[in-house]
Amino acid sequence: MMEKPFCIIFIIISIIVFIFAHSRNLHENISQCSNTKRAHRNTNLRSTSTFNFKDTPLHPLDPLTVPEINKIRSILEGYEPFSSSFPSINTLSLEEPYKNQVVGWKKGDPLPPRRASVTAFLDGRTHVLMVDLNLGIVIDDVVNVGSGYPMLTAKDLATALHVIYSDLEFKKSILARRLDFNDVTCAPLSPGWFGPDEEGKRIVKLQCYLSQNNPNFWMRPIEGLIVTVDVDKQEVVKVTDTSQDIPVPDETNTDYRYATQSQFPDMTPKTNPMSMEQLKGPSFTVENGHTVKWANWVFHLKPDIRAGMIISQVMVQAENREYRSVMYKGFASELFVPYMDPDPSWYFKSYMDAGEYGLGATAMALVELNDCPRYSYYMDGVFASADGRPYIQPNMICIFERYAGDIGWRHSEIPAMGFNIRESRPKVTLVARMAASIGNYDYIFDWEFQTDGLICIKVGLSGMLMVKATPYENLYNISDIKDMTGTLVSENRIGVVHDHYISFHLDMDIDGPNNSFAEVNLVKQETLPSQSPRKSYLKARRKVAKTEDDAKIKLKLYDPSEFHVFNPTKSSRFGNPTGYKIVPSGTAASLLDRDDPPQTRAAFTNNQIWVTPYNKSEQWAGGLLVSQSKGEDTLAVWSARNREIENKDIVLWYTLGFHHIPCQEDFPIMPMVSSSFELKPVNFFDRNPILNAKPTFQKDLPECFAASSY
Amino acid sequence: MMEKPFCIIFIIISIIVFIFAHSRNLHENISQCSNTKRAHRNTNLRSTSTFNFKDTPLHPLDPLTVPEINKIRSILEGYEPFSSSFPSINTLSLEEPYKNQVVGWKKGDPLPPRRASVTAFLDGRTHVLMVDLNLGIVIDDVVNVGSGYPMLTAKDLATALHVIYSDLEFKKSILARRLDFNDVTCAPLSPGWFGPDEEGKRIVKLQCYLSQNNPNFWMRPIEGLIVTVDVDKQEVVKVTDTSQDIPVPDETNTDYRYATQSQFPDMTPKTNPMSMEQLKGPSFTVENGHTVKWANWVFHLKPDIRAGMIISQVMVQAENREYRSVMYKGFASELFVPYMDPDPSWYFKSYMDAGEYGLGATAMALVELNDCPRYSYYMDGVFASADGRPYIQPNMICIFERYAGDIGWRHSEIPAMGFNIRESRPKVTLVARMAASIGNYDYIFDWEFQTDGLICIKVGLSGMLMVKATPYENLYNISDIKDMTGTLVSENRIGVVHDHYISFHLDMDIDGPNNSFAEVNLVKQETLPSQSPRKSYLKARRKVAKTEDDAKIKLKLYDPSEFHVFNPTKSSRFGNPTGYKIVPSGTAASLLDRDDPPQTRAAFTNNQIWVTPYNKSEQWAGGLLVSQSKGEDTLAVWSARNREIENKDIVLWYTLGFHHIPCQEDFPIMPMVSSSFELKPVNFFDRNPILNAKPTFQKDLPECFAASSY
Repeated sequence: MMEKPFCIIFIIISIIVFIFAHSRNLHENISQCSNTKRAHRNTNLRSTSTFNFKDTPLHPLDPLTVPEINKIRSILEGYEPFSSSFPSINTLSLEEPYKNQVVGWKKGDPLPPRRASVTAFLDGRTHVLMVDLNLGIVIDDVVNVGSGYPMLTAKDLATALHVIYSDLEFKKSILARRLDFNDVTCAPLSPGWFGPDEEGKRIVKLQCYLSQNNPNFWMRPIEGLIVTVDVDKQEVVKVTDTSQDIPVPDETNTDYRYATQSQFPDMTPKTNPMSMEQLKGPSFTVENGHTVKWANWVFHLKPDIRAGMIISQVMVQAENREYRSVMYKGFASELFVPYMDPDPSWYFKSYMDAGEYGLGATAMALVELNDCPRYSYYMDGVFASADGRPYIQPNMICIFERYAGDIGWRHSEIPAMGFNIRESRPKVTLVARMAASIGNYDYIFDWEFQTDGLICIKVGLSGMLMVKATPYENLYNISDIKDMTGTLVSENRIGVVHDHYISFHLDMDIDGPNNSFAEVNLVKQETLPSQSPRKSYLKARRKVAKTEDDAKIKLKLYDPSEFHVFNPTKSSRFGNPTGYKIVPSGTAASLLDRDDPPQTRAAFTNNQIWVTPYNKSEQWAGGLLVSQSKGEDTLAVWSARNREIENKDIVLWYTLGFHHIPCQEDFPIMPMVSSSFELKPVNFFDRNPILNAKPTFQKDLPECFAASSY
Repeated sequence: MMEKPFCIIFIIISIIVFIFAHSRNLHENISQCSNTKRAHRNTNLRSTSTFNFKDTPLHPLDPLTVPEINKIRSILEGYEPFSSSFPSINTLSLEEPYKNQVVGWKKGDPLPPRRASVTAFLDGRTHVLMVDLNLGIVIDDVVNVGSGYPMLTAKDLATALHVIYSDLEFKKSILARRLDFNDVTCAPLSPGWFGPDEEGKRIVKLQCYLSQNNPNFWMRPIEGLIVTVDVDKQEVVKVTDTSQDIPVPDETNTDYRYATQSQFPDMTPKTNPMSMEQLKGPSFTVENGHTVKWANWVFHLKPDIRAGMIISQVMVQAENREYRSVMYKGFASELFVPYMDPDPSWYFKSYMDAGEYGLGATAMALVELNDCPRYSYYMDGVFASADGRPYIQPNMICIFERYAGDIGWRHSEIPAMGFNIRESRPKVTLVARMAASIGNYDYIFDWEFQTDGLICIKVGLSGMLMVKATPYENLYNISDIKDMTGTLVSENRIGVVHDHYISFHLDMDIDGPNNSFAEVNLVKQETLPSQSPRKSYLKARRKVAKTEDDAKIKLKLYDPSEFHVFNPTKSSRFGNPTGYKIVPSGTAASLLDRDDPPQTRAAFTNNQIWVTPYNKSEQWAGGLLVSQSKGEDTLAVWSARNREIENKDIVLWYTLGFHHIPCQEDFPIMPMVSSSFELKPVNFFDRNPILNAKPTFQKDLPECFAASSY
């Protein structure tokens, strides 16, 4: 979940920020950028300008530019329904052209009409607008009549925080707990949806913490105090104040900043510095700010306020060097995080981070040399704030080449065999990375491309646990440990059990738009006594999915399958259809009741794999308007129609899951835990595409010295 | 499986080798070593001698040395039962002292009595001997009365190959197929066990290939020709010759050597050289040749003829820098590879590579800069050959530090929150690696240690497919594709479906020998309508295993658990027992009939997780004497006794599995595919052990230049 708590002392600042900051954002951020890029030039970073965002779009999929966002704002200002008062702009991003316009576009062609998709909120109504920049008008305006609200804006959250500090009941609760008002930091949490009580108004629920001189307020919850705020009426709806007898955990050992760690010098595991060095610089280029070319790959990469990163038009070279289409579009569509505690102050914690807060909106600047290695290229995000003005998210995405000492392929023959063979090839890959800091949690998203045609999509989890305060310092004085909803991770703190589910939208276009989905099932065959000394063996049975229901997959260890997306009209010279398979690895499945409100809203977790026919409007697995939605607009609802998916333009969906039972090692900040899945060529290439990759020779390696000049 | 085929032209050489080579082995290999190590010194490799094996053992677990092996041979020569004729020595390795002797031993103490465990074969009888080096006598000699034979020796395989070339029926078959005798290379395959026909004699089955000027004979099978040889009687038992009408696939595009790849220069994906540079050199040391110290870790590492690598006495530092025990011993215990084809020439292909061929015996010298990065430390293996003489397997294991641009932990706060925080730590790990070239397949074993206390055990697969020849060049002219037992991966070749299962022996000793095993199951809880707006949530239910049956685990995605090995007598100050959990990732389960002979012999694949009470004799999951065994001595048999395992010295077993449906990309050599599992601290540390790890600063990084001096 995402929180933007403010200390009282920052309330005023934050208000000022909201009134004046936007015009300054741009300048501030640009200067940040140029500093960053200056650092890069020292490390042969190929940065094409002093900052990595453009004023002119050069590709049909390029994100909206600063001038374009300004133009959209003025168009909306002139739009009649908004003439009396300007709405809050919750999301504003490029309305991508139709696929055929994008695929048909060639470098040098004029761009298809530039359009923006906008969700705006005014007088209790959500407008879903389409703005045409060329025509300079609003060409579509649909007012939402169903459930759900657009993404919360920073302004919404600031409002909520502002309101409570002037609320008497809240004040009373803080004083009743003998806490200093100035030490309180609150986190505005999305409320989910739990029936009619809280319908018809946009609300957030605030959870508060103690934070004096301590950045890790997350470890110091004021347990049981939840304030519900109507962000439009700007009033407190309800104050829930239980567990007043539970003290706030103290701050000992909670700080994680390097500057404060000198107190335990002995504890640090010491290792010498290491660096991935690239004497000739990186092998990739970023053309026009967004088109990444590396080895046998080319793809379009852009920041997105909601998905974080969007990877488009992914193509890989075949033997004849011709680029072949693999995927039209891939991105993280939704992120569901249900906590496992039914208490009044915990039950609602079932976040839909992408749709409620935005993976891009929360992706802060990456830390050079630590989040990303040397020689990384950094890409900035250009977004719109609540008042429709542009701002820059600097260094939001990094791109780097990766060499981890791994092997691409190898073989040795034993000398006695008559062939003295020692062949091995190092593995070098390309990674695109971002990190969304959604309140306490940090989600690291990696898209890794291999020269053998494999794409590995990885999600890493770090940051802080969401902890529940308890009066107990250790388990010995807890009467019924069975009642605990998590692990006692340190004095007076329970790390509450929770799950994480990330739904990936993977619009595969293997050698063209029309593909099919096949489940290649390994089935046990029994032999006849006369047939063979073997009693059993496995055989691969290929079944092509006709409709969506055929492709709703729950993974089974004892009924194993491969899952292929393939082009039924294109085969290799051996007659195998060209395809890619999705290769799951460690994952988790949601066990919540299908009719539990959070599960209904995040019904994309009902299966690990789904396949839908391409539909421009079906991008967000939890729905377009997720906040407080009832789940009428989810992947599960769309695919209940059981549409045909054979030899059609299809979209593959994968749900990556984590169960998280916290442990002491997660305190006060969690070592990274990660999981991944792969998109892997299967009979796509006629043979091993890295057969003749070059080995590394001693002469290729650099001589390195201490960088005294720095 | 492992094969050592010889062309006829090499038969004579191989015989000579067997008569004269052993005395020269040592010299040859030492010189190989010193060359290698010279290369290392150029790259600040801390090699403590010109070669990395010792004449004197310095630790109770150090492998047998060259003088010790020579002494054992002379002891055996003087041993009465062998006085008339010296047996073949199938395995000869250190009989490790009792655990308490090893754990109690301190640097400077005299070593416990040095003993060797020997399996020897003479006059149709398998002797399992124990030799005491200090007493200079054989102290134990058990003649096997059950099924099974010891590991095949190079001499056994050479014999088999020698015999067939003088066999008329074999000659006839080759000529009938109009093949040139000099172009034939054969692979001696282990026969498995399939009933009484082939009992009472040690046999191998030879599969032959065409190999003129072509190192990749694996892609050119002479289909249907299988020769069964009695390696002791040195006679051909049976020649199976079917499918004579199937031509041998030609050699086009099968060569994978770099020297021959110039014909496709355009195809190579180009990337600039990369190198993991360590200005101050690696952070690890290898004391006395086998004790590895790095960051907060220390462990003993040694090559083993059967397991490949054995990692012992793994300890990690806690906050007070005291070393705490995590694992007494970990290694790959067995490797099962069943092929899925019931044909006369394929049904028996169900290899038990560790016990039949040896992961160490087949681990060739690693390729510097390609199998392992710069700054790697290389360890040599010291083994005994069939005549009991020592030989060196140079550069068999490499150890290196790994930096892949990954993140150890990180967190950002959004500036508006009032804390401007950007904290991130790079992840550096230590890897111990070896690669077993078991005939066509290469298995890469990685043990990766992280500073956060996590151990990741990874197995990578590369090398060549075992292919079946077919008359068809593509699927269009195959009448019934459903009859195929695999994929047509190139002209006239079917990549036959198969599985790989690796059983890991993990003798966990968390803070001492006596541990327990707990399954922490996540169970759905239903709420009462009045209780909460939430309908359901998950709760962790901890169940401690009393006996072996409680710990026979089949993984279930929809009934998820964590699996903890913990010390029931030691808790953190919060009252949580100190433990480690085993974290599976992608894996596969065997679906073969329980009573199919291969499955009976590899019954360790019946579960993914097993826990047994420690028993010095229970090391090899498929049994001590695996060749042609009936499966009377497997993990499944031992644990059928359902012994008590609570608060005892217990051993954790994990089965890592792969289903492999080949594809075109696997031809002619397979890009690496890998899978892994983790041993992860759970309430072992009081908090995040890398909380105060140091970030990387610009000043830590080197300046690098072209190494013109090389």
